[in-house]
Amino acid sequence: MHFMQSLQQAWTGNNSLVCVGLDPEPAKFPAHLKGRADAVFEFCSAIVDATADLVCTYKPQIAHFAALRAEDALERLIAHIHAKHPGVPVILDAKRGDIGSTAQHYVTEAFDRYGADAVTLNPYLGRDSVQPFLDRADKGVILLCHTSNPGAADLQDLDIGGKPLYQHVAQMIARDWNTHGNCALVTGATWPEQLAQVRSLVGDVPLLVPGIGAQGGDVEAVVRNGRTSAGAGLMISSSRAILYAGSGADFAQAARTATIALRDTINRYRQH
Amino acid sequence: MHFMQSLQQAWTGNNSLVCVGLDPEPAKFPAHLKGRADAVFEFCSAIVDATADLVCTYKPQIAHFAALRAEDALERLIAHIHAKHPGVPVILDAKRGDIGSTAQHYVTEAFDRYGADAVTLNPYLGRDSVQPFLDRADKGVILLCHTSNPGAADLQDLDIGGKPLYQHVAQMIARDWNTHGNCALVTGATWPEQLAQVRSLVGDVPLLVPGIGAQGGDVEAVVRNGRTSAGAGLMISSSRAILYAGSGADFAQAARTATIALRDTINRYRQH
Repeated sequence: MHFMQSLQQAWTGNNSLVCVGLDPEPAKFPAHLKGRADAVFEFCSAIVDATADLVCTYKPQIAHFAALRAEDALERLIAHIHAKHPGVPVILDAKRGDIGSTAQHYVTEAFDRYGADAVTLNPYLGRDSVQPFLDRADKGVILLCHTSNPGAADLQDLDIGGKPLYQHVAQMIARDWNTHGNCALVTGATWPEQLAQVRSLVGDVPLLVPGIGAQGGDVEAVVRNGRTSAGAGLMISSSRAILYAGSGADFAQAARTATIALRDTINRYRQH
Repeated sequence: MHFMQSLQQAWTGNNSLVCVGLDPEPAKFPAHLKGRADAVFEFCSAIVDATADLVCTYKPQIAHFAALRAEDALERLIAHIHAKHPGVPVILDAKRGDIGSTAQHYVTEAFDRYGADAVTLNPYLGRDSVQPFLDRADKGVILLCHTSNPGAADLQDLDIGGKPLYQHVAQMIARDWNTHGNCALVTGATWPEQLAQVRSLVGDVPLLVPGIGAQGGDVEAVVRNGRTSAGAGLMISSSRAILYAGSGADFAQAARTATIALRDTINRYRQH
């Protein structure tokens, strides 16, 4: 199924805008998993199995797996999500970006090797660097627009003829790059004004919003500023606050409780 | 040894500004390697062993390995270069970029897992996204400035208060980010005027220049526009034209011949 279609169905079916970020850090795993050969897969798949009816998407962050030499666990994790929870699409958070001939290899990595339904990309190299991804019309192409970190301002807020670069990027993508309707944008929760600006510029293009929780973004501001007129359009990402909500044998149950709380907080602000 | 020191020594010792890009594409491998279990390592290491006295650096492009599930071959290839040709530093061409806490995992990937001496990064997320790399003062941090592809103009040439974004990026990095002296910039060979602008803005900061050969960049213009007053400061990258110079059992010798020709063409323009 097309990414955008699965996302729509998961928003509605699970009544949730929560995206759970899968960022394994073995030092934070519960004691009974530490040192086990397949701890990364066991941890992440337990989180998934405990939350799949509460989320609109999963977002494994590839650096966490690459630093651990755990590409194999990442392949199996995404296959597990597809097999057990086929209604929930998977975003590979990779923030790739390279010239066309190389981008083709990153397409293979994200969509063919890992079987992701969508991937995050960096727009700095321009449209032809993104085209091989755009051409996979069934896949989601989620481009960095205004990121959640403090340094986002260094480039993204620079003034381009009266408007900041990130607004130029948002408009260019929504107007020119989104011919297959498979684009989305990353807009950090820590910049609620910019989030409102982006929403006003891009119609119903979905926004992936990291930065609540540990980074300090405010959920109410995110939902009010980022929602579409239908009260959706958002994938609000949380990683650490869900993954490490508990530190004992009941970590997956604690993750479920944290996910329910986040889903409900978000839903409070979706319609009014 | 520090990346910048090894690079200086390789420039001088090998009298070469050539950077060989290691972009394995099994479909182009010579017949006797096709289908062999370790073909990627065998191919790349043969190229390295045939050219190590002719280059200033190697640059494996990680997407080519990731698309093939060949992370293990990449680890062994970089270890092989360090063991057999310790004077030649290795750039991991990964163009990574993420917020600080995730960037730390990419630092681990590039420098600890793969043992690279330098890595290419995307500056769009701003300084704090690059800081964990900058802090590894012995490693090279090579930031995209003006890339070689046609779409480079989409963002990089946008006008910021009278000068294009890529010049702002070049100045910001050379002035503010380069406190440990370990920064370099990517400036594509296909944009010789922009290359000259960057050189005029950044003093002796090294430039990694892709885009000669298959992409059409002109070697004479690159050297004349990009060299420092000492006639160096450049890592001129060539991949396909060297790797696939021959298609038979003598492919490594053909790569050596192509590398000599490129080194000599470059050297013709270094001093006058």
